[in-house]
Amino acid sequence: MFVSDNVSSVCPPVMQAIIDADKGDAAAYGGDEATNTLNAAFSKYFGKEVVAFPVGTGTAANALSLALATPRLAAIYCHQYAHIETTEGGASEAWSGGSKLILLPGKDYRINPETLKTALSHVPRGARPQSAPPAVISITQGTEAGTVYSLDHIASLSKLAHDNGLLVHMDGARFSNALVKLGCTPAEMTWHAGVDVLSYGATKNGGMCADGVVIFNQDIIGQQSLLRRRNGQLYSKMRYLSVQLLAIIRDGVAEQNARHANAMADRLAHGLAEIPGVRLLFPVEINEIFVFLPDAVRKRLGDKGYSNQLRTDHDGPHYRLVPAWNTTHEAIDAFVAAARGDNH
Amino acid sequence: MFVSDNVSSVCPPVMQAIIDADKGDAAAYGGDEATNTLNAAFSKYFGKEVVAFPVGTGTAANALSLALATPRLAAIYCHQYAHIETTEGGASEAWSGGSKLILLPGKDYRINPETLKTALSHVPRGARPQSAPPAVISITQGTEAGTVYSLDHIASLSKLAHDNGLLVHMDGARFSNALVKLGCTPAEMTWHAGVDVLSYGATKNGGMCADGVVIFNQDIIGQQSLLRRRNGQLYSKMRYLSVQLLAIIRDGVAEQNARHANAMADRLAHGLAEIPGVRLLFPVEINEIFVFLPDAVRKRLGDKGYSNQLRTDHDGPHYRLVPAWNTTHEAIDAFVAAARGDNH
Amino acid sequence: MFVSDNVSSVCPPVMQAIIDADKGDAAAYGGDEATNTLNAAFSKYFGKEVVAFPVGTGTAANALSLALATPRLAAIYCHQYAHIETTEGGASEAWSGGSKLILLPGKDYRINPETLKTALSHVPRGARPQSAPPAVISITQGTEAGTVYSLDHIASLSKLAHDNGLLVHMDGARFSNALVKLGCTPAEMTWHAGVDVLSYGATKNGGMCADGVVIFNQDIIGQQSLLRRRNGQLYSKMRYLSVQLLAIIRDGVAEQNARHANAMADRLAHGLAEIPGVRLLFPVEINEIFVFLPDAVRKRLGDKGYSNQLRTDHDGPHYRLVPAWNTTHEAIDAFVAAARGDNH
Amino acid sequence: MFVSDNVSSVCPPVMQAIIDADKGDAAAYGGDEATNTLNAAFSKYFGKEVVAFPVGTGTAANALSLALATPRLAAIYCHQYAHIETTEGGASEAWSGGSKLILLPGKDYRINPETLKTALSHVPRGARPQSAPPAVISITQGTEAGTVYSLDHIASLSKLAHDNGLLVHMDGARFSNALVKLGCTPAEMTWHAGVDVLSYGATKNGGMCADGVVIFNQDIIGQQSLLRRRNGQLYSKMRYLSVQLLAIIRDGVAEQNARHANAMADRLAHGLAEIPGVRLLFPVEINEIFVFLPDAVRKRLGDKGYSNQLRTDHDGPHYRLVPAWNTTHEAIDAFVAAARGDNH
Repeated sequence: MFVSDNVSSVCPPVMQAIIDADKGDAAAYGGDEATNTLNAAFSKYFGKEVVAFPVGTGTAANALSLALATPRLAAIYCHQYAHIETTEGGASEAWSGGSKLILLPGKDYRINPETLKTALSHVPRGARPQSAPPAVISITQGTEAGTVYSLDHIASLSKLAHDNGLLVHMDGARFSNALVKLGCTPAEMTWHAGVDVLSYGATKNGGMCADGVVIFNQDIIGQQSLLRRRNGQLYSKMRYLSVQLLAIIRDGVAEQNARHANAMADRLAHGLAEIPGVRLLFPVEINEIFVFLPDAVRKRLGDKGYSNQLRTDHDGPHYRLVPAWNTTHEAIDAFVAAARGDNH
Repeated sequence: MFVSDNVSSVCPPVMQAIIDADKGDAAAYGGDEATNTLNAAFSKYFGKEVVAFPVGTGTAANALSLALATPRLAAIYCHQYAHIETTEGGASEAWSGGSKLILLPGKDYRINPETLKTALSHVPRGARPQSAPPAVISITQGTEAGTVYSLDHIASLSKLAHDNGLLVHMDGARFSNALVKLGCTPAEMTWHAGVDVLSYGATKNGGMCADGVVIFNQDIIGQQSLLRRRNGQLYSKMRYLSVQLLAIIRDGVAEQNARHANAMADRLAHGLAEIPGVRLLFPVEINEIFVFLPDAVRKRLGDKGYSNQLRTDHDGPHYRLVPAWNTTHEAIDAFVAAARGDNH
Repeated sequence: MFVSDNVSSVCPPVMQAIIDADKGDAAAYGGDEATNTLNAAFSKYFGKEVVAFPVGTGTAANALSLALATPRLAAIYCHQYAHIETTEGGASEAWSGGSKLILLPGKDYRINPETLKTALSHVPRGARPQSAPPAVISITQGTEAGTVYSLDHIASLSKLAHDNGLLVHMDGARFSNALVKLGCTPAEMTWHAGVDVLSYGATKNGGMCADGVVIFNQDIIGQQSLLRRRNGQLYSKMRYLSVQLLAIIRDGVAEQNARHANAMADRLAHGLAEIPGVRLLFPVEINEIFVFLPDAVRKRLGDKGYSNQLRTDHDGPHYRLVPAWNTTHEAIDAFVAAARGDNH
Repeated sequence: MFVSDNVSSVCPPVMQAIIDADKGDAAAYGGDEATNTLNAAFSKYFGKEVVAFPVGTGTAANALSLALATPRLAAIYCHQYAHIETTEGGASEAWSGGSKLILLPGKDYRINPETLKTALSHVPRGARPQSAPPAVISITQGTEAGTVYSLDHIASLSKLAHDNGLLVHMDGARFSNALVKLGCTPAEMTWHAGVDVLSYGATKNGGMCADGVVIFNQDIIGQQSLLRRRNGQLYSKMRYLSVQLLAIIRDGVAEQNARHANAMADRLAHGLAEIPGVRLLFPVEINEIFVFLPDAVRKRLGDKGYSNQLRTDHDGPHYRLVPAWNTTHEAIDAFVAAARGDNH
């Protein structure tokens, strides 16, 4: 139950856009009308001229963004538990032609500017580099712990990065969830705060099979076309992906989906937190909950037929619960009731 | 006009399958029911136990298939104008960790067994290999020239390959078009003839954004899961891709779409061939036509509003025309009439 | 002063071997008599049938060893400050076709078996790996901190590694220094203790431009020839490298050189340790000293013309001093006297 | 007999330079005096400010040069039988992070400008590249067939390359042999004729284990330091390699060695050519002979104890004979006499 937001179906506006796109012929490989609209639509959404294109998965979005943002032999700084490090099979290293991830610690999965500063100060300078030179910092917003970077936090990391010649990548797999949490504009959370390239998450928000790469920094668009081709991301019937992105950013769909998912997570977190022995591992700031459940609670949930996978990692044994755009109040309340052991 | 079969929309059975899949939650990353059915469905379709999974593009299908079929440092033999060489941005080399494509000539884009035999005989043997050892031959069925390998042709290449320790990959971007042309079974055109792994083309046939990798040789399934992840092909809402593949191979949909597209190409080829000065570059065996058009014909087509891109390559100046599942007789006849300069 | 052991010249037995090798023609690329003797000589030295070959640098030795020991997509566990991580420009990742280094903490730059065990326990199991599967642990003997693993320590790491399907690589850039410190046999410090492949350090010991790869595990010799070629390590006049290795392991040359360098380091460490404010960062177990020097000491050394580079990293500000086979007692004593500020 | 020029020993000036270098300590990793002299010495030799550094093998020289000359995703044009294609195990592709070799035909292993022009004209232009964009042409001087490019030939290839945005690499494994054949200056054969980066061959000429990379184009020196490290070419005791290069280019040593080897090849070719049935495959322009020998000749040579390896490749069955700096007139004459079947 609530295993992840990507177990959800497709939200109606996206599904309708796909159905609407299914009319007659259209130029392949992105020559179609919908894809041709993407740059303008995303430029409007972000209040700045950007280049935007669809990819099929979040891993593709991250690996492509980072390949664009790095020269051939480069170091990418990220949190030690960043998705690009733990879960993507080495895609970012491979797609960028051999970049190296440099892992930084950080409470609640956020990188502290001081930590980055110290790490950069330890890179030997001079004519004989011993390792790949720093090129990018990648931050995840909202983080893999379900927390959110404040705008000031992002800005201070970006300033430090830019002052040291690094670019800034944002893994926005749950971009909109963080956005509505902060109550800011897309511009404020990205290029205003120094972000150079964004993995825009649409699939988890309510899409089918489309995430986006959004390039704010015009200097790095050069190889996007070849990199997409080489990495199998140049969809022949691209219109069906492009319309997903267009539908998500239109009319506040993304924000509405995110706001609902966040609210459901909040309701769930509050409900569980009142149960003795239950402990939240991180502040619940978007739609992800990481929670320790005592044996009695686990048993009660199991008895009611709720299954989920116990995780045991550096954070100890816990459960991860992720409501989505289509999670109902009723489902949340029933789950909490089962966890509490309410009689019916 | 007829620029490619991937300008077509999605055929109704596939679209309906996607709509039907859009119900409630389902396990992510391939844990869903549709994906769990894939192996069985493709095993039935091919009359042999196979492993099958969806990818988003034909390039992804080829590069993944070849990565599976090659050890780290390996040579892949293919036609000098194979799609994996000319059009995929180096994906197969990159995804396989540095394999090398060895290019072979061949009339009508088919590799002659003698050519392969000679090439293999020139590989220096012994303890000190000078280059990546031969590991795979990749053939395209139907070929990039719109021709088809006969079953005997495939079998003789496969025998030669296997006798020399190579595996056999088939790029089946237009698999069904070749299949109905030969009038054989899927089994006969693949593992019966020695194919170890297949890129099963569904998108061009009538799908939306799904092709398949079908593994006949059980020895090479080991790294498929990690390779899919690393290469951004592990779709979180995989069900929406899996149902496309299931719908295509069910009830003869793929064959029917292919048969129609082939017939339209045949009609088009016959119509054009009667016009003085028109010359077909290759035998028209599937749904692709490569044709030289005299200036007068080109002008007449342009006047009627038909646009297409003149290609000038090793085959000289020509046009490529590719009818699809949704091409109508009327469209073909109108095009031929315009080319002929019929008065209306 | 004492910047590193690789500022030293070539020890006489090695230089003589090179001069002796310079007679007439000899087969190229390792077909010569000296190279043909390598396997036998190293097999005798290690008391076990091994495959051994020369490479030009320590980085080449490590990257080749690890490429041999890893399948295409693999994780290499090592200390967070291992040379392969900090100083080799990503060679091991690149040569192995995209392996990933997993960094482990550890006091005095030694990896604790418990740390490895915990790290391995956090690797998600099952059918869908999220990252490169564990394949090798690489340990450095003696370590980058100048410390040494005990035989039991190595054996317990190896057992844990082998029990989990990992191989064991030893970076022996200062192999002989550790060997004489432990007072054991080459066999005991390697395959007896579970080592599968060794980077055998000869250059720092007293060689010119040759280190060795020694393969104990017969299962992984397959790709050595091609990997050497692809990575530019197949020397055409290989005899001149092979004789360096032969001269080093003959007649106790390596051990004698190492014993002397260790003794000089010990003398230096004792001399410095008596000076107020001086602090050794790690136990001095081979020929490397990492030492904090108070400002007064640094000034005194500078005044006497001693230059060295202050390092400021995770261990704080310090100096690294590395005596070699040709360091004299007099040089050590003069340095210590200068540090003490003795009047002359 | 005459299997290759790299079976030869080291010429006396190089050996003496190594012995002279073996005095006391010197800074490691290229901080030594000899290495610091390299740029100036090579700049003087080539009459232009260059960056030069030693590598251990010809493969390393080529792969590093090409990695420097290519962006991440690039196409390298070369002869279909170029050494970088046939014999280096894919090093250039690997070190450059996934470049692709595009093979061109050409009589006597020389690329005709028309051939390059046609190949470049077939690269699809526009916003959506289908494969790696052309970045470099690599030519071998003297070629793998023992022929030589004229200065005009090189200049016309370079002009075509530069006009199309490509750089020019010269594989000079037998640089000096071509130089003395043409009777020109090092400047004329390189940057005067448009060469951007050179693999300078010293080992085959008379060195021990050192070739050089010489960068004429200042735009591409950026990553040399990191690429050398990552590819295991940053020798700790670099002085011993640098002095080899210095000794070779000093006092006409390289040219004298080359002139002798060429003369011996010429003598050998003339001697063999007079024997009935003997056929030279290519003009003999440097120190390499490719020759078809009738069975009777082969038998006579075998009876006299001459062994060599029959090659059977695209050029048919033949022998390759390569005199070196230390080949004697007597050895040549005895070989020819044996081939002729002279009685003694």
